[in-house]
Amino acid sequence: MLITALAGGVGGARFLRGLRDALDADPALAQSDLTIVANTGDDITLFGLRVSPDVDTLLYTLGGGIDEAQGWGRADDSRIVQGELAAYGVGPQWFGLGDRDFGTHIARSYWLGEGLQPTAITERLATRWGLPGQRITLLPMTDAPVETHVVVEREDGPQAIHFQQWWVEDRTRTPAQRFVVAGLDRAAAAPGVLDAIREADLVILPPSNPVVSIGIILGVPGVRDALRGTTAPVVGVSPLIGGRPVRGHADACLSAIGVESSAAGVASLYADFLDGWLIDPADAVPGPPGLRVETYDRELLMGERAGAARLARAALDLGLALRND
Amino acid sequence: MLITALAGGVGGARFLRGLRDALDADPALAQSDLTIVANTGDDITLFGLRVSPDVDTLLYTLGGGIDEAQGWGRADDSRIVQGELAAYGVGPQWFGLGDRDFGTHIARSYWLGEGLQPTAITERLATRWGLPGQRITLLPMTDAPVETHVVVEREDGPQAIHFQQWWVEDRTRTPAQRFVVAGLDRAAAAPGVLDAIREADLVILPPSNPVVSIGIILGVPGVRDALRGTTAPVVGVSPLIGGRPVRGHADACLSAIGVESSAAGVASLYADFLDGWLIDPADAVPGPPGLRVETYDRELLMGERAGAARLARAALDLGLALRND
Repeated sequence: MLITALAGGVGGARFLRGLRDALDADPALAQSDLTIVANTGDDITLFGLRVSPDVDTLLYTLGGGIDEAQGWGRADDSRIVQGELAAYGVGPQWFGLGDRDFGTHIARSYWLGEGLQPTAITERLATRWGLPGQRITLLPMTDAPVETHVVVEREDGPQAIHFQQWWVEDRTRTPAQRFVVAGLDRAAAAPGVLDAIREADLVILPPSNPVVSIGIILGVPGVRDALRGTTAPVVGVSPLIGGRPVRGHADACLSAIGVESSAAGVASLYADFLDGWLIDPADAVPGPPGLRVETYDRELLMGERAGAARLARAALDLGLALRND
Repeated sequence: MLITALAGGVGGARFLRGLRDALDADPALAQSDLTIVANTGDDITLFGLRVSPDVDTLLYTLGGGIDEAQGWGRADDSRIVQGELAAYGVGPQWFGLGDRDFGTHIARSYWLGEGLQPTAITERLATRWGLPGQRITLLPMTDAPVETHVVVEREDGPQAIHFQQWWVEDRTRTPAQRFVVAGLDRAAAAPGVLDAIREADLVILPPSNPVVSIGIILGVPGVRDALRGTTAPVVGVSPLIGGRPVRGHADACLSAIGVESSAAGVASLYADFLDGWLIDPADAVPGPPGLRVETYDRELLMGERAGAARLARAALDLGLALRND
């Protein structure tokens, strides 16, 4: 079976590690291939190096190198390089990069300088992290440089800042007026992305941020059409519990685009292609016709990694049920 | 008094730290300014980052950050970043860079990307290392990208390799046929370099490599003319003891250009501008007319830093004597 998922960073990565665990635990599904299309709108050039936060979080989480407590960055990392950069007055300091993490950014930047595309670079990085051996293919959503900017109100009027600055430095305290994704309208989907959606047996949307993670991927020309056209069921997992994000600031992002912070609100963003919607019991509302809504037992979430596997299994079961309908 | 020195890496840096110590220890000379013109022919792009080995060794040595035992690189450094690069298969691994050192290369590369010239970048780096407070100005010999390559014999014929590869990976075991300095003939001296030589009260050539350090600086258009034209005495310190280099591979470099590995051989490279020549007693030969040759007491060299200060004091005394002639 070919399963294709769209994903952002921490939440998506943890869910997809759980999905791989769930597949591996089921003899009938262990040989399934998992293709992940990663958001690259978070990408940012820091200290002259190209950083791809969602891709790296996926690599480190799936490859066993993640800082588990933090959810991003490398385990057992130090901050020597960034301390030196601070001593030289080279900023910004609001984005914390560990030394092991710097290795990834230097490698990516080096390969970009050699003329490699992000797809080929991600493949090289994924090889080091053992993803092919797990039957996982990680694809950036596009090879084009795309950056999500956030329009916020400043004293001297509206100003567009990089998404990372709003997310990490500002911690979304300044309300977003809107999101502007530079380069997205002209970005082609990376090689393999559209086929992975069209040819999938099941498409899964993990509980990633529906606006600035999955929403950005949906903006890549052709992706939404591929989701509408695929014969595979498309199953989403709501990122909200009782209308609040489990992690991150999905509510702040939803309000910026005028969508209610609720499972129904999120589902409305996917209305033209979503077949199944897995939500928390607290958010249970009847779905529109043609959308199968199921609730999961919140006890599934007990225990970080095992909980993710159980939640992913529930999404798999919903998808398999839809395939048999 | 304005003292201008040309310098390479480890040997030059240690000597010049001794010179600054000697100046500071003499109330009549403590207010002297020291301008150092650094060789940048060793510069190399590694992992997509611009590394300037001689400039960095001078910065770290004069700024108190050097790995004293090794002579180059940062004290108390680790190798996390390069370990990651190796895991990704990004080479080369023969050039060892520590994590603190990476901070310098990332800062330099970032500023180069911002459009700053090496002179301005070196000034920023030097500020962090406290050189202005020591009355030291560090200048790269040129802002142009210049790289020393070494022609060596390979199985399939002569091949030009980067100087660093010959020096660090090959350890000069393969005889050099000649040196080719890419870009040197079209390189302009960096702002301030020629004036620092012309307007100096004393010019000092530390015991740096006469071929691949000082020799490269001498190849920058205008530098040799400035040395010939300056009214300041030019005093050199031989890098050889008994015809052998104290450190490094000056002998391998001299033989490549067909010059005898002796104090007299080195002096012949500076013949058109050298006024004073400080050598080891073992190398004592009468100098040509017009060159004042003095020997130093080898006991001066006892103790790393204090020895360098005593040797530098001897060079200073020779220079002051020439000024009074």
